[in-house]
Amino acid sequence: MSLPLQHRESAMLVNGFVCKDPEVVTAEDFFLAAKLDMPRDTKMSKVGSNVTLINVMKLVGLNTLGISLARIDYAPLGENPPHTHPRATEILTVLEGTLYVGFVTSNTDNKLFSKVLNKGDVFVFPQGLIHFQFNPNPYKPAVAIAALSSQNPGAITIANAVFGSKPMISDDVLAKAFQVEKNTVDWLQAQFWADNHN
Amino acid sequence: MSLPLQHRESAMLVNGFVCKDPEVVTAEDFFLAAKLDMPRDTKMSKVGSNVTLINVMKLVGLNTLGISLARIDYAPLGENPPHTHPRATEILTVLEGTLYVGFVTSNTDNKLFSKVLNKGDVFVFPQGLIHFQFNPNPYKPAVAIAALSSQNPGAITIANAVFGSKPMISDDVLAKAFQVEKNTVDWLQAQFWADNHN
Amino acid sequence: MSLPLQHRESAMLVNGFVCKDPEVVTAEDFFLAAKLDMPRDTKMSKVGSNVTLINVMKLVGLNTLGISLARIDYAPLGENPPHTHPRATEILTVLEGTLYVGFVTSNTDNKLFSKVLNKGDVFVFPQGLIHFQFNPNPYKPAVAIAALSSQNPGAITIANAVFGSKPMISDDVLAKAFQVEKNTVDWLQAQFWADNHN
Amino acid sequence: MSLPLQHRESAMLVNGFVCKDPEVVTAEDFFLAAKLDMPRDTKMSKVGSNVTLINVMKLVGLNTLGISLARIDYAPLGENPPHTHPRATEILTVLEGTLYVGFVTSNTDNKLFSKVLNKGDVFVFPQGLIHFQFNPNPYKPAVAIAALSSQNPGAITIANAVFGSKPMISDDVLAKAFQVEKNTVDWLQAQFWADNHN
Amino acid sequence: MSLPLQHRESAMLVNGFVCKDPEVVTAEDFFLAAKLDMPRDTKMSKVGSNVTLINVMKLVGLNTLGISLARIDYAPLGENPPHTHPRATEILTVLEGTLYVGFVTSNTDNKLFSKVLNKGDVFVFPQGLIHFQFNPNPYKPAVAIAALSSQNPGAITIANAVFGSKPMISDDVLAKAFQVEKNTVDWLQAQFWADNHN
Amino acid sequence: MSLPLQHRESAMLVNGFVCKDPEVVTAEDFFLAAKLDMPRDTKMSKVGSNVTLINVMKLVGLNTLGISLARIDYAPLGENPPHTHPRATEILTVLEGTLYVGFVTSNTDNKLFSKVLNKGDVFVFPQGLIHFQFNPNPYKPAVAIAALSSQNPGAITIANAVFGSKPMISDDVLAKAFQVEKNTVDWLQAQFWADNHN
Repeated sequence: MSLPLQHRESAMLVNGFVCKDPEVVTAEDFFLAAKLDMPRDTKMSKVGSNVTLINVMKLVGLNTLGISLARIDYAPLGENPPHTHPRATEILTVLEGTLYVGFVTSNTDNKLFSKVLNKGDVFVFPQGLIHFQFNPNPYKPAVAIAALSSQNPGAITIANAVFGSKPMISDDVLAKAFQVEKNTVDWLQAQFWADNHN
Repeated sequence: MSLPLQHRESAMLVNGFVCKDPEVVTAEDFFLAAKLDMPRDTKMSKVGSNVTLINVMKLVGLNTLGISLARIDYAPLGENPPHTHPRATEILTVLEGTLYVGFVTSNTDNKLFSKVLNKGDVFVFPQGLIHFQFNPNPYKPAVAIAALSSQNPGAITIANAVFGSKPMISDDVLAKAFQVEKNTVDWLQAQFWADNHN
Repeated sequence: MSLPLQHRESAMLVNGFVCKDPEVVTAEDFFLAAKLDMPRDTKMSKVGSNVTLINVMKLVGLNTLGISLARIDYAPLGENPPHTHPRATEILTVLEGTLYVGFVTSNTDNKLFSKVLNKGDVFVFPQGLIHFQFNPNPYKPAVAIAALSSQNPGAITIANAVFGSKPMISDDVLAKAFQVEKNTVDWLQAQFWADNHN
Repeated sequence: MSLPLQHRESAMLVNGFVCKDPEVVTAEDFFLAAKLDMPRDTKMSKVGSNVTLINVMKLVGLNTLGISLARIDYAPLGENPPHTHPRATEILTVLEGTLYVGFVTSNTDNKLFSKVLNKGDVFVFPQGLIHFQFNPNPYKPAVAIAALSSQNPGAITIANAVFGSKPMISDDVLAKAFQVEKNTVDWLQAQFWADNHN
Repeated sequence: MSLPLQHRESAMLVNGFVCKDPEVVTAEDFFLAAKLDMPRDTKMSKVGSNVTLINVMKLVGLNTLGISLARIDYAPLGENPPHTHPRATEILTVLEGTLYVGFVTSNTDNKLFSKVLNKGDVFVFPQGLIHFQFNPNPYKPAVAIAALSSQNPGAITIANAVFGSKPMISDDVLAKAFQVEKNTVDWLQAQFWADNHN
Repeated sequence: MSLPLQHRESAMLVNGFVCKDPEVVTAEDFFLAAKLDMPRDTKMSKVGSNVTLINVMKLVGLNTLGISLARIDYAPLGENPPHTHPRATEILTVLEGTLYVGFVTSNTDNKLFSKVLNKGDVFVFPQGLIHFQFNPNPYKPAVAIAALSSQNPGAITIANAVFGSKPMISDDVLAKAFQVEKNTVDWLQAQFWADNHN
């Protein structure tokens, strides 16, 4: 078991985890007291949501098995902002509340496929496509359970990766890409960017 | 879209669904009003459980995307009896109640890895291994959400496939396999076998 | 080359073998004097069969290559009892004798597809499905060669995994699953369970 | 050969092309007079670039073979703006000019890995990550050849998919995601969005 | 079931078979009376061997399942000449006689890994590498069973593909490749080329 | 990072590279100053060509990502002689000059699919099939860029692997395979064999 690798996130770690010696594997390796029944704090996040992802970094028995699970909490009017999973499709069901969800197809159509989901509805976000969930209710929180088709799906919050990368992407590049003035880009890049995954 | 294929179950249908013409695909193809928030009836099942699986037969947009989702209801003392998924790993979290869960490793060790799960706990059942969930509480039901790493994972309830196949497996074969008298096998085969998936 | 891993069986070891340094690889790494032409003893097995599987644990050159090979010996009236391979399809041909073979499809049909095979016949057991072979001849042994689509296919003998796991599965679970009295389960669990793979 | 499917682009068409009857396949099915040596017009594009992708829609022999090829032309100060390929890694080499290139890793680090590439340099953009190429030279065009690890890699230009989808994503969602006023979002959505792929 | 496709061989048919409707599938679809126990004629072949391959074209139930099986008969001093399988690894065991077998690694080492196999020995030929089997015994035939890790592995007999293609490869190309005079190439191309697979 | 493995070529190393610790990965791991714009020397090669392959051994960031890139230089009348890639499909475009290219399908048809390619044309060589490129112009060199669908595609030059392996394949085997006298084989094996990849 390679702890330095197992507890770090990387775009390159598609399947880079070292297997444990099977003689010392126990049921604990396939178990996590993740408390997915407990509401998460959504106030720490500017976007009003909190994603609790159980992937191979947290549950080592998932290694090579191609699946992970997440609980997502949404504050009233909170959202899981536009993002992609570079290595996974996502299937989601609403446990509490209402969600306006959608994904956008590839170039050149860039069609938005969206729905308002109620409790118990199921929706699919195909691999690598930009998608989001938004809680349109100004008073009540929402909760969803999502599953992803990789033990290490990765998540890329579009705004954070584009305007909050470290170091920053040149404002020449972003001004032209978004058809805005450089000072608009500079202003965006000056925001404090924090993602909503923990 | 090939309706005759899409609405039938088969061991051979690993990825045999015909894609729809993309011009006529809509958000509805990625959506199902599955009512996964609603309790299912567990009284129709002899084993006291009810599995509601959302796979590619029910949600066509899942095709080729390698994932599916299920709600499982357990009566008090009900169980999802020992079974396997021939083409998928499963990750499960408990929404309500308590579950005694486990899986058994391959020959020759046949180790049982088991845990008692409480609300919010997460457990993994690796691809193709025999596993079960049992609600040990005599008064309260339990509910779980599970995800599987295939759009068509399949499910094989061991007792049903072994003793309830159509036609029946020769009792010579089963008597020797289970080290019992043939009339015990015959008695088992005479039971009414119904699985708990719908 | 990681000997502790290479000589142990595990449900998690889908592809967990460490490659040898190519500079020191030789033809011996792709070779095994497996004596697959020699009859195996079938008397040690309660079910009257003996499976000699050449997988990556025995032939290290198979690593990552997705295939393995087996010889199966059947005593008169012996059988390879109902079992599954969690990570492989099997193709089998009869070298000597006659075999009654079959597999059962997934829920909810649980159809038995069976045939009596004579010398030279070929049959396929799709990935993860429960299957068996039985020698119906009371006087003559039978022999088959089988190939599996994984270097580490795994094998789960149903009766052994269900009734002979270590520790045992709760008899509450099994009594309900098999619709029998608990003392029947207890009696079954008290048998000496030994699998027929070596 | 399914023309309606083969000549349309879709996010769902991972491997949905019908194979031709092999008896009528010819060398022409593996060939395209793509004129990849000829400069493309970069003036039609607001971002000053033009991507000529040879994928399975244009070259049917690529079906199931997992690769495609592209020529990219960059005007002076032109760019291939931040985008992802949902189903492919990209490897790129510069044929003419200079390119500032980069990709951003997944949450939560969002590290920018960037380089200035000269003629003959090679760079890799891992599957699903946001990446870009920018020609920093105000006078000279640049040209690159890129290859992608899918016959149908897809491309998602971030700005177009986020602000130019049809229909538009709710400005509530985008205002919160990008931490800007709704009227900024509305202004962005009012731009004419055209991608640079043909 | 697409008969025109299912009964033809093609380099492009990696997984191009149309699934049968599961309602009409029977045990016969997984069975072939292949008579693999019967010696094949090796006199029709210039190289003194005969390969009987049971792949998806002959046994439709193999589709998508990733495996196939072959019997190979060798005349005294007969051989299965240098060939490759473009989509499969092969594992082989000797049923009768003796075989000198080998494979050659990739550039630039081109190491020959070879062994003399006796009855019951097992050898592996990794995917895509050039390999051969030769019966060194001038008096006795040999027989082997081989399995391949694809339902449609393909086979390319090197001499036939290089010197016997239809139409022929330019003798300019072959003379330079083999460092021989063009008239030697022309002489080779004038031979009657017949492969040993049926 | 396992240097002994990363800097050696092997037919067995399908995916055997150890991942670097993500904390120490930088942009340099995804970059190579490969000088693919510079003509390579084609005079050192008997066949008049020079393949510069950028695979995972040279560019470690390619690991697990399934792609590689090559520049191929052809002298006047030079060729990239008949060869295969055991683990990859190739897509090629001509940068300079003219190329006569082709591949041969599997047994038993062994059809040659060939074309004369001019600058900017694109051609595909499906996985594992024997293919070649020849520059028919006696005065001018040619240049191509090719991409391959594996980070470690391997290359097997047919003539070198067949007649130049170390140690040599028995001339009994080769004489029968190519239907020539043993002394012709011996003469071929006595040539100095050097491949054109560096």
